[in-house]
Amino acid sequence: MKTINISLGERSYPIYVGQNLFDQKELLCKHLPGKRVAIVTNKTVGKLYLEKICNLLDEKDLIKIILPDGEVFKNQESLTLIYDQLLKNNADRKTTLIALGGGVIGDITGFASATFMRGVDFIQIPTTLLSQVDSSVGGKTGINHSLGKNLIGAFKQPKCVLTDVSFLSTLPQNELSAGMAEVIKYGLIRDYKFFVWLEANIDGLIKKSPDLLMEAIIRSCQNKSEIVEADEFESGIRAILNLGHTFGHAIESAAGYGNWLHGEAVATGTVMSATLSLYMSWLTEKDVVRIVAIFKKSGLPINPPNISIEKFLELMHRDKKTKNNDIYLVLLKKIGVSILTKDYDFEKLKLVLQKKTFD
Amino acid sequence: MKTINISLGERSYPIYVGQNLFDQKELLCKHLPGKRVAIVTNKTVGKLYLEKICNLLDEKDLIKIILPDGEVFKNQESLTLIYDQLLKNNADRKTTLIALGGGVIGDITGFASATFMRGVDFIQIPTTLLSQVDSSVGGKTGINHSLGKNLIGAFKQPKCVLTDVSFLSTLPQNELSAGMAEVIKYGLIRDYKFFVWLEANIDGLIKKSPDLLMEAIIRSCQNKSEIVEADEFESGIRAILNLGHTFGHAIESAAGYGNWLHGEAVATGTVMSATLSLYMSWLTEKDVVRIVAIFKKSGLPINPPNISIEKFLELMHRDKKTKNNDIYLVLLKKIGVSILTKDYDFEKLKLVLQKKTFD
Repeated sequence: MKTINISLGERSYPIYVGQNLFDQKELLCKHLPGKRVAIVTNKTVGKLYLEKICNLLDEKDLIKIILPDGEVFKNQESLTLIYDQLLKNNADRKTTLIALGGGVIGDITGFASATFMRGVDFIQIPTTLLSQVDSSVGGKTGINHSLGKNLIGAFKQPKCVLTDVSFLSTLPQNELSAGMAEVIKYGLIRDYKFFVWLEANIDGLIKKSPDLLMEAIIRSCQNKSEIVEADEFESGIRAILNLGHTFGHAIESAAGYGNWLHGEAVATGTVMSATLSLYMSWLTEKDVVRIVAIFKKSGLPINPPNISIEKFLELMHRDKKTKNNDIYLVLLKKIGVSILTKDYDFEKLKLVLQKKTFD
Repeated sequence: MKTINISLGERSYPIYVGQNLFDQKELLCKHLPGKRVAIVTNKTVGKLYLEKICNLLDEKDLIKIILPDGEVFKNQESLTLIYDQLLKNNADRKTTLIALGGGVIGDITGFASATFMRGVDFIQIPTTLLSQVDSSVGGKTGINHSLGKNLIGAFKQPKCVLTDVSFLSTLPQNELSAGMAEVIKYGLIRDYKFFVWLEANIDGLIKKSPDLLMEAIIRSCQNKSEIVEADEFESGIRAILNLGHTFGHAIESAAGYGNWLHGEAVATGTVMSATLSLYMSWLTEKDVVRIVAIFKKSGLPINPPNISIEKFLELMHRDKKTKNNDIYLVLLKKIGVSILTKDYDFEKLKLVLQKKTFD
């Protein structure tokens, strides 16, 4: 097992990364000071793992909250359901919430913990690659609004994150691919050596080699934790984590939440960002070929669905990084070096938005 | 004008207390760095003051959000309405929200600002005595849930508070009285000299003498700011601000939100707390007579509505201060000295809950 400590003053916490962590009851229980614990999960994950977690918590008063499975349920209704269940079961300020599931469960449970009785503790047990390398690290929580993703939310750090690679054995292949999109992102935005390592090991990763996955998760979490420590509330450098996301969120929204996996939309969005970076003469043709190749080997889409340029721009304007009507984008200066900027050629952005195929 | 600075590190902010502050455009505008400003108010206050505020902000892009008036609207629906209006009018992370109104508007607008796009700035312009001395100071924000008051919320400090005594000229008399309940509270929990000053000046205060009101507001805000500075997130001493509130919230809930004003319920709850403190032999009969007298002179109720003891206890259990099923109460050791405790005689609490009249 490897421990990565996130240093955020009084909001610091450990991320434990390992295999079969659930043989180690102490690891979870030492972060649960109170008697009452609420586990939030979804039907799919609950069927596989809820009992296993409950067995570890046999000395606690447990509240089990099971949501339907899917991004489309990351909304106000699910949040209300969590509040109602907590209150009906006499949860109080000393109750800890545990998020057992992927990014949807983590984000919504984190937001519930940020807002229930003005804030209670929570713990993340991420069960997908995407949530293990991204959403469980850094404290962004929230729900979607019909007008855009994650528009309602809060920054709320967990008390600890338990990342168990063994969960990935039951993860569908397309969700593993979606997680790889965010793993590859860390290489692209700030870690060229990691990108080269990923190029060399992508086949083994996609085949779910536990040792390779553990290495990829650790290096991803290390990258993310360094960024989050430098800029917890995204007033600056943290925004580079959004490589591909402004395009990606527009794709997710236009396609209808849940029709594209988040990682799939990010992969395509990243290829679009790379292409705009090429048009700005920052990347070379060869760089873009490498980026396209690793996404394709990961089983990820690189071409957007059919969206008019007007619709694309309208959706991109709604991005949280928009300021005074300027769309800020994360672009690549080279592989491993990224910037957040509004100083790109808007005509070249329009060319990218009109392009139908990127391979 | 008097400025009270709340020292909370990077979350510090000034409270300006004065008369006719709205002749001073600079005071508000220096706390508004962005171009876009959203004003949230209700129909009653909006009719009286919205145009006046808008005139000060003629250089801004204004979004006006007008909610129905009343505690019953401090709920998820109103919050959703705020989110929707913000998004439809292209509010972004640089937008500042202004709460123009009483406690309901302040709490809900503060919570919207804590959760819109994971947090935007907000400013409080409290227009009732209650919000000027209590809810606008200290960063508690939130909405009610059908199972209890303020169960959903966050701690979120404003960028500044503009407290103008001149608003009180249009405040209905029963709402002025309700505000006095919280003013008197500060004397009872920690400031005996202030309590004596209030006893001497209660008639002038109720007649809305601006100079007396300004003095009462300043001394209340000073008391509250000292408590909040010592314990921003209510892990200890801050709980004494809840004198009378555990009884009071139960009264509000049993009577149906909006049928008792918050301050009215707090007044009755405080008399009940004082009576339990008498039964514990901490207060004298004479102390309780003084407390009852000042509330009666303020035009406040001191007897609860008809609530069964079972219902009272059930509602009091839902209080956020409840831990491991123990009801924690703020009680008085003497006038000016309070404690939060679960170590009272439960049989004596039941006697208080069964008592019908307290005068």
